[in-house]
Amino acid sequence: MHRLNETNMEQTVGYGEDAHCENARRLIRKACRREDIDVHFLVGGTQTNTTVIAHFLRPYQGVIAADTGHINVHETGAIEATGHKVLALPNTDGKISASQIAHCMEEHLAEDGPEHTVQPGMVYISFPSEVGTIYSKQELEDIRSVCNKYDLPLFVDGARLGYGLTSPACDIDLPTLARLADVFYIGGTKVGALFGEAVVITTEKAKRDFRYSIKRHGGMLAKGRLLGIQFETLFTYGLYFDIARHATEEAMRIKDALQQKGIQFLVGSPTNQQFPILSPEQYERLSANFLLSYWKKMDNGNIAVRICTSWATKTEAVDALLEEIGKM
Amino acid sequence: MHRLNETNMEQTVGYGEDAHCENARRLIRKACRREDIDVHFLVGGTQTNTTVIAHFLRPYQGVIAADTGHINVHETGAIEATGHKVLALPNTDGKISASQIAHCMEEHLAEDGPEHTVQPGMVYISFPSEVGTIYSKQELEDIRSVCNKYDLPLFVDGARLGYGLTSPACDIDLPTLARLADVFYIGGTKVGALFGEAVVITTEKAKRDFRYSIKRHGGMLAKGRLLGIQFETLFTYGLYFDIARHATEEAMRIKDALQQKGIQFLVGSPTNQQFPILSPEQYERLSANFLLSYWKKMDNGNIAVRICTSWATKTEAVDALLEEIGKM
Amino acid sequence: MHRLNETNMEQTVGYGEDAHCENARRLIRKACRREDIDVHFLVGGTQTNTTVIAHFLRPYQGVIAADTGHINVHETGAIEATGHKVLALPNTDGKISASQIAHCMEEHLAEDGPEHTVQPGMVYISFPSEVGTIYSKQELEDIRSVCNKYDLPLFVDGARLGYGLTSPACDIDLPTLARLADVFYIGGTKVGALFGEAVVITTEKAKRDFRYSIKRHGGMLAKGRLLGIQFETLFTYGLYFDIARHATEEAMRIKDALQQKGIQFLVGSPTNQQFPILSPEQYERLSANFLLSYWKKMDNGNIAVRICTSWATKTEAVDALLEEIGKM
Amino acid sequence: MHRLNETNMEQTVGYGEDAHCENARRLIRKACRREDIDVHFLVGGTQTNTTVIAHFLRPYQGVIAADTGHINVHETGAIEATGHKVLALPNTDGKISASQIAHCMEEHLAEDGPEHTVQPGMVYISFPSEVGTIYSKQELEDIRSVCNKYDLPLFVDGARLGYGLTSPACDIDLPTLARLADVFYIGGTKVGALFGEAVVITTEKAKRDFRYSIKRHGGMLAKGRLLGIQFETLFTYGLYFDIARHATEEAMRIKDALQQKGIQFLVGSPTNQQFPILSPEQYERLSANFLLSYWKKMDNGNIAVRICTSWATKTEAVDALLEEIGKM
Repeated sequence: MHRLNETNMEQTVGYGEDAHCENARRLIRKACRREDIDVHFLVGGTQTNTTVIAHFLRPYQGVIAADTGHINVHETGAIEATGHKVLALPNTDGKISASQIAHCMEEHLAEDGPEHTVQPGMVYISFPSEVGTIYSKQELEDIRSVCNKYDLPLFVDGARLGYGLTSPACDIDLPTLARLADVFYIGGTKVGALFGEAVVITTEKAKRDFRYSIKRHGGMLAKGRLLGIQFETLFTYGLYFDIARHATEEAMRIKDALQQKGIQFLVGSPTNQQFPILSPEQYERLSANFLLSYWKKMDNGNIAVRICTSWATKTEAVDALLEEIGKM
Repeated sequence: MHRLNETNMEQTVGYGEDAHCENARRLIRKACRREDIDVHFLVGGTQTNTTVIAHFLRPYQGVIAADTGHINVHETGAIEATGHKVLALPNTDGKISASQIAHCMEEHLAEDGPEHTVQPGMVYISFPSEVGTIYSKQELEDIRSVCNKYDLPLFVDGARLGYGLTSPACDIDLPTLARLADVFYIGGTKVGALFGEAVVITTEKAKRDFRYSIKRHGGMLAKGRLLGIQFETLFTYGLYFDIARHATEEAMRIKDALQQKGIQFLVGSPTNQQFPILSPEQYERLSANFLLSYWKKMDNGNIAVRICTSWATKTEAVDALLEEIGKM
Repeated sequence: MHRLNETNMEQTVGYGEDAHCENARRLIRKACRREDIDVHFLVGGTQTNTTVIAHFLRPYQGVIAADTGHINVHETGAIEATGHKVLALPNTDGKISASQIAHCMEEHLAEDGPEHTVQPGMVYISFPSEVGTIYSKQELEDIRSVCNKYDLPLFVDGARLGYGLTSPACDIDLPTLARLADVFYIGGTKVGALFGEAVVITTEKAKRDFRYSIKRHGGMLAKGRLLGIQFETLFTYGLYFDIARHATEEAMRIKDALQQKGIQFLVGSPTNQQFPILSPEQYERLSANFLLSYWKKMDNGNIAVRICTSWATKTEAVDALLEEIGKM
Repeated sequence: MHRLNETNMEQTVGYGEDAHCENARRLIRKACRREDIDVHFLVGGTQTNTTVIAHFLRPYQGVIAADTGHINVHETGAIEATGHKVLALPNTDGKISASQIAHCMEEHLAEDGPEHTVQPGMVYISFPSEVGTIYSKQELEDIRSVCNKYDLPLFVDGARLGYGLTSPACDIDLPTLARLADVFYIGGTKVGALFGEAVVITTEKAKRDFRYSIKRHGGMLAKGRLLGIQFETLFTYGLYFDIARHATEEAMRIKDALQQKGIQFLVGSPTNQQFPILSPEQYERLSANFLLSYWKKMDNGNIAVRICTSWATKTEAVDALLEEIGKM
């Protein structure tokens, strides 16, 4: 990782903005096996979500999302700041289903005077979800069908996309995602880049004027090459996936070790985020030496924690954790 | 009612705008027993909710409301259009409690980085609620205490205020409301006026520049005297309350008749809206001759309907309905 | 006028909302000689301008207008409140020209990175303008051509439309306006109605979902029939034009009388607003008995005033004014 | 510069976010000789302008700026996207004056119904301005007085602040700026950093909740230490000023050389941007080998160009340019 950073910066002087960004775009198009997609580089996740959603929606439309969705919870109303309501549906393990979306649309259309309520205008899902789960190919195909039926664009928040695509439970790849989503992004910030998200737009009519929307939301980086260089590096020789796979594999090792001890999980995540439920003693023991995020207290007094691996997680650190788990 | 309209319009020519509006303000101040309140007249409910909320909130704040609250459901995202999130809490019979509000604030403050989530900046309740229920004096005092503790202004949507204050179950009056709320409005549109809502601001610092906010939201009626005249008329000789009381009394007659037949209600409303649950036969029978609003199908196949009386409800029509109920 | 008001209200009880609004729509379609236009009724001017502009524009677009345009000056930033910039062009007698619009577009497109500036997305003109002038048919045709060339919808603010169409200098009629504009409105508030503006949408793709936009901007009047009734009355037997013509004719009488006294005008208006430049003595004399609006002080100490006739202007009052002018 | 970048990144691993950002804050407080100021790090200029302005203004307020101001021209309506109007005043060499601001306020207050127009709520100036000019200490003191009189916060856009403070014509320093402005920013992007602007808030009541505003506008960088490190480096040993001074000095050399050839300038800039007016021959000659930005064509056919030095400008390159100028 360290070397990546250094390399990035060394290249900065030698190459101009266009060359790097253009090359990164070319590599991403190739990885998606689609020549007709538009690729834009933005700085961070909140900005990306806001820019994409505001670009796609008509003023009186809202965006359908899981109630646990990042846009509904953790962005200080950035979506509402653009004038749009988040239409939150109850989640199941961080996900929403095709039938929920269809039901939401039918309910809206069945109203006596639908114009008194916000018109659903887009579907937002995260892959992986905020609790680490992923949609199966079938689930995504079903959501796509519903989106087609009701003319709803599908937006996939891929802030942690790499960790999803490299999960052992994942049955889709990048080209499949590019086929199913109208717009999605390949998260860099959480997968090895200093910062940066690569937005991929597959729908023809949505491509127009997207750069205006980026600028309007303050997302046009003066030194855009910094973003280009990073994605260029990440998509050369499959580095993006290698980095993510490392994190996912370490997470699976931790998951296995915990399961062997009979520990339950809040949700069955096949990606880099794990949510084991520990007894107070186990919690004390592990948190003494390892960075666990307190997640929530269970009714029986046990404690759900979040363990999150990343590109920066060292194998030796995981070894030490496994050893400690073994002693429990 | 008819005469009221005629009278209104006849007066139009004779008197200028200021005289009418000023007089209406004076009458409302008197009814609230407060000389230090500001009174503004707006045209409709959505506009009023939007204008008040946007005037009080800082950009990154949201408004706490019941998930059934009008602003969360039936205003086509008008609140979000001003950039603010509605922080919806689960309702109990259309109401939220002081402890829910306190919990919501505590949860926000306890976050690791509260600035990643919307800051609760106001409490919105409806009196009566969207399903006709009303808050007791004690419930309002409790909410006021929590609002004081967390420095949250309290906004009471009084679109149907008259029907609440004249309910036999109501233990507050207008001066009490003026003491407890930072801002509320006296609904005219749904209580006998052609249109118009009278906004009452009791908090000193919120009074400043409210007319700018009205204009910005398109709510400044060129011929403002039309609003003044109506509220002038409604608050002369207690007409506003007489009108509302009539509707509430007719609703109580209907409620009693239905209860005597052993009919259950979706929610126990003491105001002009009633939600009886009818068998399919009862529904067919009553809806043949009376205007019932289909509300929702119950799990057992029965049908909840909404019966809504108003200033315009004729006693003879209610007599006929009672007769029909008697035959069931 | 008085009778109109009474009549309006008497009808209120007898007829339902739909019948009145539908009939008013039918009459307006007939007056425009177009069956394929959509007609909506809104309460006031600021609301109408805001709703229309926000409905038509994409988020990153702005609206081209004269710097004197109502939306640029007198609406407390209501347009900006919807997120859109007013792109103000210097006016000539309250008007902008086709070549100015073309130049504005060319300048935008010629920028090195047009996405760094607001994209012009609509043209807003007023007919008559804020200083009473009107566009000739040729001027409007030229603007239309430029709008076609750059794919810009044309919005005509007709808050005072009646006074424009009945001007002796006017060479267009309502059907011509309906052919040239994508959207315009027939102002009621300033032309005899208690309140209300009738929005006419002629462009197919803009018609969709306009009711959502109305509701979102708080413009859906619960008792919509009040608007329907007024426009129904105004468009029966050409009452709208009769009312307006009366005001225009009285204004012309005043204008002639002032011109005969050699008085100059700030701008040569052929409609109900006149802007004569008076000497201090003349100003004192006329303002002693008549309602003149102080407009601005000229460099030489003279005073420009605004005289504004309306549906309510009495012929006897104008006679008295003419007599006073005659004595000067 | 190159070394700076490498160093920055090498440090990344070793130090946590807090340490770097806190240290950078400490250094900036020291440079401002004020312990009571708040310092925040944002990514880019548009975002910074939008976040600050939206944080300070009430919904119905606008921001006073020169018509050439960056926020009025080059940010794709990002300010309007937050609902606020830019109140543009005519510039003189890119600047506005205290008396213009006072006049603008007086005009607003003198209106018959000021609430029909946008309330001026903040003053925005750039230092240096968009055409390279700077305000004198006296001019700033005068603006401050007017701001005090009308209770207007003063915001100084310092995207190019370093180039202004190191100008030979500049008679203020950082502590003076911190005394006069309510909020300003120290631009990094254009003065040697990869990206980043350091916002300094000096007014007590505006400090509250600024982090909410940052997040809401998508400006909270997940890896915030990247910003901290850069400003830490820039404010250690006065590097920020050294970098800027280098650019200013090179610009002065170019300016002198052009003046000696009798060349006129569009505006007399004492900072890193120069706007000489060249004959077509001169333009052709210089642009053959040097990067000149075409600025505008003069009436007599001459061409105004922009020459812009920066931290990256090499002395040898300037030497070559001077040689070429010498030959003209």
